[in-house]
Order: sequence, then structure tokens, then C-alpha cells
Amino acid sequence: MGEQDPRRRTMTRRRLLGSSAAAVGAVGAGAGIYGVADSAERTEAVTGTETVAWDGPRQAGIATAPPQAHAIFVGLDLLPKVGAAELTGIMKVWTADIARLTQGRPALADTEPELAAAPARLTVTVGYGPGVFVALDRPEVAPPLPAFAIDRLDPAYTGADLALQVCADDPVTVAHAVRVLVKNVRSLVTVRWMQRGFRRARGAETPGTTMRNLMGQVDGTTNPEAGTADFDSLVWDDGTDRPWMREGTTMVLRRIRIELDTWDELDRPGRELSVGRTLSTGAPLTGAYESDEPDFSATDRNGIPVIPPSAHIARARHTHAGERIFRRVYNYDDPPAPGQVSNSGLLFVSFQRDITTQFLPIQRRLDEFDALNEWTTPVGSAVFVIPPGVGSGSYIGEGLFGR
Amino acid sequence: MGEQDPRRRTMTRRRLLGSSAAAVGAVGAGAGIYGVADSAERTEAVTGTETVAWDGPRQAGIATAPPQAHAIFVGLDLLPKVGAAELTGIMKVWTADIARLTQGRPALADTEPELAAAPARLTVTVGYGPGVFVALDRPEVAPPLPAFAIDRLDPAYTGADLALQVCADDPVTVAHAVRVLVKNVRSLVTVRWMQRGFRRARGAETPGTTMRNLMGQVDGTTNPEAGTADFDSLVWDDGTDRPWMREGTTMVLRRIRIELDTWDELDRPGRELSVGRTLSTGAPLTGAYESDEPDFSATDRNGIPVIPPSAHIARARHTHAGERIFRRVYNYDDPPAPGQVSNSGLLFVSFQRDITTQFLPIQRRLDEFDALNEWTTPVGSAVFVIPPGVGSGSYIGEGLFGR
Repeated sequence: MGEQDPRRRTMTRRRLLGSSAAAVGAVGAGAGIYGVADSAERTEAVTGTETVAWDGPRQAGIATAPPQAHAIFVGLDLLPKVGAAELTGIMKVWTADIARLTQGRPALADTEPELAAAPARLTVTVGYGPGVFVALDRPEVAPPLPAFAIDRLDPAYTGADLALQVCADDPVTVAHAVRVLVKNVRSLVTVRWMQRGFRRARGAETPGTTMRNLMGQVDGTTNPEAGTADFDSLVWDDGTDRPWMREGTTMVLRRIRIELDTWDELDRPGRELSVGRTLSTGAPLTGAYESDEPDFSATDRNGIPVIPPSAHIARARHTHAGERIFRRVYNYDDPPAPGQVSNSGLLFVSFQRDITTQFLPIQRRLDEFDALNEWTTPVGSAVFVIPPGVGSGSYIGEGLFGR
Repeated sequence: MGEQDPRRRTMTRRRLLGSSAAAVGAVGAGAGIYGVADSAERTEAVTGTETVAWDGPRQAGIATAPPQAHAIFVGLDLLPKVGAAELTGIMKVWTADIARLTQGRPALADTEPELAAAPARLTVTVGYGPGVFVALDRPEVAPPLPAFAIDRLDPAYTGADLALQVCADDPVTVAHAVRVLVKNVRSLVTVRWMQRGFRRARGAETPGTTMRNLMGQVDGTTNPEAGTADFDSLVWDDGTDRPWMREGTTMVLRRIRIELDTWDELDRPGRELSVGRTLSTGAPLTGAYESDEPDFSATDRNGIPVIPPSAHIARARHTHAGERIFRRVYNYDDPPAPGQVSNSGLLFVSFQRDITTQFLPIQRRLDEFDALNEWTTPVGSAVFVIPPGVGSGSYIGEGLFGR
């Protein structure tokens, strides 16, 4: 039986034609470039087959552009027995898993290998929280953030010894990678939190336009552009203070709840004055296009500033070029608490060479005053050192642990 | 300033060239058909711009194929004051919102209109739980499911008076639609649950191949094919018993937790015997291809059945052609409970003309025995009547409420 199955004949013909999948391995990553990968066994569209290099001087998932559609941020705590030797073990396991999964290959001893088949630009970024440096007896390297008056932090979303930022354009790929990475080190860590974020689907973005958050605002304007010298100097450590941090960076992850119910009661002019931008275009109130520089000195005919000094963009504005950060944010939208309609917000994620000189001055200004604070509440906060990248024969954090 | 902005000149040139977006409004929905929509203001890839008709004799989101990548299922309870008049009001509001949002237009009084711009095959399917028919004094129309021995139901995921199945290929689109639909009727309902599900991203599916769940199995083989007479007779009500149900159907939503930790301890032969299929291909153990008919009478040389009688596919197998259902399942993957690594499973969703004669016999056999039961636990369950579709000038459920 089955020899008469026309589909089976098709499969055989495809096999005879040979696999052209290898040629499709490296495809253009630009928006709007689509095609069909023909393999011996099946046909896949390109969103699933795109890959991002796992190795190199810097970790992936930071300059990777555009940011992938889906992310899970995992915060892990070390069990008391974990020291430098066990951390090295975790890093070796993760490095091997990351090298395989990001390239569409099953992890070692992967119990669901078929789920690894669509890398979908998977990246995994590993970070070290204050607890790692306490375990290494070097707590001064990565102190936790100071407290801010606006914070209403839930311990369930705050702090962690280790972080994984797992991003891909496919949510099954992200779920599988997180499962593999966490279960393979479960004898040494516990899960403190998992936070799921999303942006527009791959193929549904508006190229060249900044993502909108669930308040409807563009979120990420004036970001330094990946690959430029400006970006590099703002994000990557040059190793001057600590040689093992060369090409590393730091990550701030803050969970910002949006009070959508009261935000929705505010009219559009009120919203635009709070943000300092026109909602429809994202342009500053003094300009016509999103990329226009805001003019904070402009006044209307009554002498009133066009952009209120309390507007978010006025408060968040850097006071000098070195004070900037790179934002790579995700939306979150979780089931609401009883009696509520929504539980939505922003996973604010920023990368910067130095938290103290780049992130903190901005955050202190927003803490002091920001018109948007009425509709946003920080409910989680964590900081991590992102060590440099890795190559074949080495492992993540080798420069820190391997001495 | 700004007149020298080269990008601004580009925008103006685009405006002068005029909008060709309208011509791209109706695009091929088949897998692998991609393109770029050029509009006056921006360029979008097709995943965001595809639309599904909101009107017609049957509700969308059932025969819509392939199933969209993202879904949120919302269970709502009616406040005590709600009767037929208020239900009619809810249906009119939802019908107007659905007509606009699914076509990429902001809802009436949409407070975040920019988030409606990417319909991404958005569909909204409305269902009526037992509570609606109690409110109408007709409880016999939609009784709840009987209890099953395998069930460990959490009230937080069980039952509901009204259901929304909101599906799209973009997670921002889904979040925005759910927010709009729920908040616009919040004076009449409370949220009982929201359950988020996902499949492979649009463009990362393997066309012609069934989705894999997070156990790594293909899930949905032998499904009747949308658009065939077979599908139509299994899914759509012919109105014989209740004229207002003509072209309606019923939906079963069961939240099935996967015990991934113990499942991962089982070797591949053990998994394949539990399911009755080869994991890599999805073929029955008696066949070579996923679509091969399983041969439950085949034995090995020792006379032992190749597919164990306790295997999932043997127990789930229909005993006659009319006993089949249409499955449209989603994965879920939520943050784990303290001390756990995963909280994953399946949002089992089935549509069938008659729950009693199609769904229940299958479910009773699985409840009695199914080798997979050791690794799966139903933790939520709800049933809904899906009323027929709607056109301009009418509203969802008009045949039921409008008399």
C-alpha cells in the first residue's frame, strides 16, 4: 500500500531533485525580502529560517536589528552552593546550547529536537546580576539600582542573579529555547521570574518607523543606530577598567505598568502634551517628522513653551551626548487581575556601557518629575552585566570565570 | 530648518507618486505569497496587511486557514442585571468593533487608533456559554460539559458566560483588539479568564504540515479540511433543530497542562508508543507518512499490536465518520510556578456541529483510558455556542436575541 499515494510520489521526486535548502541558509535579513526555502522534505517561508550569528566579539540580541518579534526574559537565582566552578559549568552548557539552537539545530540531548528546526533569528543574551559578583566576592562590580520614589516594585519581577534574554521571530522557538536553557541547569538555579514581551510580527513592522507601545506612542525614537560609531561608543565597553568586559555592556530591565484605564480617559491633546510628541506621527510638538529634533525653547504666541518642560521627552532628554542609552523595548500584555480589564505595559530594556553615567541621570530626572508618571508605574527592576561574546572553543564569561 | 532633510524629500516624493496601497488591500492569503505594500506614508510587509472578511453566513476564525499565529481566548461573565436587551447591546457594540478592527480601521472612539493599522488576518469569534441561555431562560440549549475523571479543573480557567476568540498573525493587533472589545462592554461583564496561545509565526510554518505542540508531537492530523463538504457537515449547523443556529457551530475549549518534566524523562520509543505515531514524521507507527491511515489491526511477528490499543491515536479514533471534530489548537507557555521550570500546555479548541454526538464520545474514551493521560492534565474547560455570521445591518446573535 502507499505506492499509489500521489503525495508520496511527490516526496520522492523532491528527493530526486535534491536539497536546495543549504543555499537558502543565509538569506537577506532586510524587511520585505521574502522567499521560499525548498528543502528535500518540506517548504518553509523565510521568517523561520533566518539565523543570527551566535559567535563574535559581542553577544547577539543587542545590536540585532530589527529587534525580534518575541522575547522571554528569564531571571534566575543561584542556589547557595553555586560558586565560580558551578557558574563556569552553567556557562559551558549554555554556550553549547546557544551555538546549536540559534543555528536551527537541536540542543545536545534535546528531548524535542523537532521544535529546534525554525531558528527564526533566535538570539540568547546572557547577563550577570549582582548575585554573581557577590558569589565571586566582587560586589562592587555590579551594584543593584538605587531606589526611586516612583517605584512600586514587586519582588516577583525584581532582581535576579542571572538573566537570559531569549528573542526570536517565532514564539514556539522562544518557548523551546527557554525550556532547554533553564532545564539544563535546574540543579544549580531557581526561576525567579519569566517575562514575555512582544513587538509587531516579522513582516508586520513598518520599516524605518519606531515601534508603538500599547499606549499608542512611538517608543524608541532618537535611539543610536546599531553599527554606527556612535552606538558602539555608547553601548560597548572598551575594557579600560576591566579587561574581561571589553565588548561587553550592561542591561537594565524595568517592568513599567501602563495605567491604560486612566490613560484612555485623557484626550489626545492631553496625551500629546504629556509625551511632547504628536501621537499620529511621533514628531515632537515643534516638528513635523519623528526624527525632527525637538525645540525645547519654542514658545507659542502667548510665550508658553510648545513642549511643556514636564513632558516626557523634555525630562528624558540627555544633557550631553555621552548620557544616551540604547533602548530595545518590548510590550507585555498579561491576563488582568480580578475586576480589571487589562494588565499591560512595557518591558523597558536598555543597554549602555555605564549605568552610572548614562542610565542613572536620565532615570533620576524622570523620577523627580515626568508628566507620564501619572499613567506609568515601575513594578519590576533588575540590572545585569552583559559579558562579551564568545567563539568556538570558548564559553560565555570565560574572561571573568576562567582565571 | 528641516527643508534640507533628505528623508522629508523622500516622503514628499512618495506623496507625489500617490498611494498604491488600495491595490494591495486584497492579497493572496496562501502560504509563501509575500510582497511589499507601498503606501503614501510607509512601506509594510504583507503579514500586517492581510485581512479576513468579517461578514458572511458563518463567523470567521473557524475555517480561517492556516490558523493565525496568535490567539487570546477571553471568558467573560455577565453581571446579574444583564438580560436579552443588554446582551443585544453588547452584540451591537462588538459587531461594529469587529467590522472595523478586522479591516484595519480603528474601532469607534478607539483611544489608540494607530494600533489598528495592521489587521494581520484578525478574526474575532463570539461564543455563548451556558450562562447566556440561563439568562434567556433556555438552559437546555447549552448545558456545561459533564465531569471527567481525568479533570483537575481550576475555576480560574473553567466556564464563562461569553467567549471571544481573537486571532491574528500579530500579537500587538490581538492585544489591541482584546482591549477594545472588553473595555467597551465593561459595565455589563467581568473578565473570568484570558488565555494566550500561539502557533508558529506567519512565515515560519511548514506549509502542508501539521503544527507541533510543545511535547514535540504533530497535533491536528486527520482534521477535516476547511471548505470541503466533509468539513461543512461536521462543523456547521443546518438549522433543523433551531433555525437561529443555521451556519452556527459549537466550541470546546480545554486547557491541557503538559507535564513536560516527566515527559522529557520518557525515551523516544516510549513516547511514540504512547502517541501511536513516529515523532519525527508524525506518521502512524504502521505507516510512513503523516497522512497514512493507521492500521490498528497490524501486529509484529510476536503478534503484538504495532499501535498499542492504549495509544492516544487508538483511543481518540472516531468509531464512525460522523463522530469527528475540527481541532484548531494553540500552545500556551506561561511563567512557571515557584520551584518549577515550565508551565506549558495546549489550548485544545474544537469546533463541531453537535458536542453530544461528536465531541463527547471521543472525550469519554480518552477519559476512560489514554496512554498520554500520564503526561497531560485538563486544568480548564468551557463550552460555547457559536452563533452564525453577520452582515451589514445586522448584528451577531440577532437570530437569537432579536425576536
